[in-house]
Amino acid sequence: MKCLIIAAGKGHRLRSKGDSKPLVPLFGIPLIERVIRCAVEAGADDFFVVTGYQRESVCVFLDRLAKRLGIGITPIVNEDWEKENGLSVLKARDYLREPFLLLMADHLFNSSIVRKLVELPLTDGEIALGVDRNMSNSLIDLEDVTRVRTEGEKIQDIGKNLKDYNGFDTGLFVCTPAIFDALERCAEATGDTSLSGAVRRLASEGLANAIDIDGQFWIDVDDPEAFERAENALMANMRGKVNDGPVARFLNRPLSIWISRRLVNYSITPNQISLVSFLFSVLAAGLFALGGYFALFLGGVIGQFASVIDGCDGEVARLKFQTSDYGKWLDAVLDRYADAFLLFGLTWHAHADRTEGLVLFVGFLAIIGSFLLSYTADKYDHLMSRQIRQGRGLRIGRDIRVFIIFLGAVLHIPFWTLLLIAVTMNLETIRRLIVCRDHG
Amino acid sequence: MKCLIIAAGKGHRLRSKGDSKPLVPLFGIPLIERVIRCAVEAGADDFFVVTGYQRESVCVFLDRLAKRLGIGITPIVNEDWEKENGLSVLKARDYLREPFLLLMADHLFNSSIVRKLVELPLTDGEIALGVDRNMSNSLIDLEDVTRVRTEGEKIQDIGKNLKDYNGFDTGLFVCTPAIFDALERCAEATGDTSLSGAVRRLASEGLANAIDIDGQFWIDVDDPEAFERAENALMANMRGKVNDGPVARFLNRPLSIWISRRLVNYSITPNQISLVSFLFSVLAAGLFALGGYFALFLGGVIGQFASVIDGCDGEVARLKFQTSDYGKWLDAVLDRYADAFLLFGLTWHAHADRTEGLVLFVGFLAIIGSFLLSYTADKYDHLMSRQIRQGRGLRIGRDIRVFIIFLGAVLHIPFWTLLLIAVTMNLETIRRLIVCRDHG
Repeated sequence: MKCLIIAAGKGHRLRSKGDSKPLVPLFGIPLIERVIRCAVEAGADDFFVVTGYQRESVCVFLDRLAKRLGIGITPIVNEDWEKENGLSVLKARDYLREPFLLLMADHLFNSSIVRKLVELPLTDGEIALGVDRNMSNSLIDLEDVTRVRTEGEKIQDIGKNLKDYNGFDTGLFVCTPAIFDALERCAEATGDTSLSGAVRRLASEGLANAIDIDGQFWIDVDDPEAFERAENALMANMRGKVNDGPVARFLNRPLSIWISRRLVNYSITPNQISLVSFLFSVLAAGLFALGGYFALFLGGVIGQFASVIDGCDGEVARLKFQTSDYGKWLDAVLDRYADAFLLFGLTWHAHADRTEGLVLFVGFLAIIGSFLLSYTADKYDHLMSRQIRQGRGLRIGRDIRVFIIFLGAVLHIPFWTLLLIAVTMNLETIRRLIVCRDHG
Repeated sequence: MKCLIIAAGKGHRLRSKGDSKPLVPLFGIPLIERVIRCAVEAGADDFFVVTGYQRESVCVFLDRLAKRLGIGITPIVNEDWEKENGLSVLKARDYLREPFLLLMADHLFNSSIVRKLVELPLTDGEIALGVDRNMSNSLIDLEDVTRVRTEGEKIQDIGKNLKDYNGFDTGLFVCTPAIFDALERCAEATGDTSLSGAVRRLASEGLANAIDIDGQFWIDVDDPEAFERAENALMANMRGKVNDGPVARFLNRPLSIWISRRLVNYSITPNQISLVSFLFSVLAAGLFALGGYFALFLGGVIGQFASVIDGCDGEVARLKFQTSDYGKWLDAVLDRYADAFLLFGLTWHAHADRTEGLVLFVGFLAIIGSFLLSYTADKYDHLMSRQIRQGRGLRIGRDIRVFIIFLGAVLHIPFWTLLLIAVTMNLETIRRLIVCRDHG
């Protein structure tokens, strides 16, 4: 689908962040790149960007971005960029003969909103606008937002000064070329060259639809306060990872988000972060093996810290659009090595204390149980997800495992820690074998 | 698709194997069940079976089979079962108004042949016969087989006494109801009530197509010699497993097939075989840990034997139509446990000999490397198969790993064996990480 992006304005309220608003980096990624990448995720592949203020630097950036992402980006010049935004939309008239997405360079959003717009069946002459019905959305600047009054799925009125309203304009549209006629007719009749004016005109003809955004994230990044809200909202988004266990959710994740927020400003890659986390685990294992309570304690803390860092790779990847199959796989493999080293270090510590064969055997069972738990999780989820609809039962993730090791080291009970891990990991593996057999 | 199976004849030449030919068990599964299961695999779901000789016992069996497999099986009686087989086909006339498969209860086949027939677009009035063009097929009884002469894709003539021929009749057909008219017309005109007669008639009208079976397995199980050939051929089929490593292919597989051939006659399930193999591995590990060369030697032999048995579960499953996702998964999990136990046993043995920390660490690396190799194989194949088209590089499978352990035990060099496994398994894991990164 084609996608028109308006990036012509000056955005003077955000000038503390950079001279050209579309190029202001948020977690290292310019705003317009975020908009384009999210639109690509939603299914757009051919872009038209109306530029005005500072258009040379924007065009140079877009040209490189197009090559980097392998998509088409056509810049369109609007010399009248200081006037209303409807004029910017009109400049694209000759390029867009079928339905297209219409987005703003400074409106960030969750791609699921735009995917909903892309999938909408529009009849000729219609447009549709993503409308936020959450009247207490804390990301919205109530003094600046455009308000919308809807009835059912139709927009009744739109404007910044609307008194009677039940939604907010997200700036995310899907349009038929009828929007161009509406802009012209509106300008001729009232002299209003704003996009809202044209939408109001189509609304009066029953041709402007309101699409509920279902509470998904969007934000108009207009000033430094909104910029900070956007940063916080994107970060908060990381908390929602479905697979997070309790330790990850309540201990590791808040800390890793705090760290990721600093890391995104550097050029360190997610895979490098995975590797650093692994090296910290090996360091912790070495401290375990060294013997003595101080080294054991320090190893426990560093092992837990490595587990926190282990959350940052995925966070940074998602914030900087650097997720990859390979990255996930590398992380999984390094996690298995890290677990094995930690448990072997702990086994060595307990073994040196006791010099018993039993300790070695329990340590071996702990290593192999941890591994089997991860191994079966993979196959269990993959093969059995179709057959077993119910919950996944006890989910002993890596977050819990490393936390138990941390506690065991700090409390100076390495052998009992190994025994606990050996018993729980192997029992859960056996439970999975039974559950899968009964449902297989 | 509907499927008609002719199971009316007496099959007196096979009476040494059982009184009712369709019920003669081959590797524990009656011939007609094999035919029906392969047809189900090829896409058939509604069966009509013409019975004659011993029809009560055949009908009782089919009734139970239908419930067991959740398919429809309608028995049709042919009182004239001692006459030509065309009369059996005619009995089904009222049941079959659209194209249908026509199979013989005593003709076994690879389901890919029938799948090819199912997918054939037939025009009204046509039939198609699977034709074997391999003139030196050793599974064929040249004195009894029906011969075919074809030109391009059309059958020119068919009969047992054909002098000029270039293919063999497999007894696997897909027919339109035109076959019934052809049978009647042929009987009226010449008195010939055989199926071949009707095919000859359609051939003369250019309506009988020959479908090349591409060298796939089929056999007419007519007498004890053919029965034995069928057993050997099904067994030989097991050798072709794509994933077999060199040790599996040249050492384990021939032995496991020899054992499976005995096992199929008992009611032991594939999962039970997996468990027995695992227990043998644990026994071998225990012997390793016991210390002393005799126990080490015996453990090596038993460990290798467990690896041989580990091939039988899949073989028995495939021969008895008992393959399942769960079975494959259980086998993979038990293999990981077995590997870990074997390596821990060997580590213990080497450790007791040397009482050095280095031995423990190398043993640990061997365990974790073996695990990672299997873990990455799974993810590597799954995630990367789309991206990496070339070969899989060095494939160090479980067959090689267990064989190295066997050699190390027999040669009494446990430490160097562990070192070899630790180095190769971890290096190959690292190689996979690099290959995937470069192609990711």
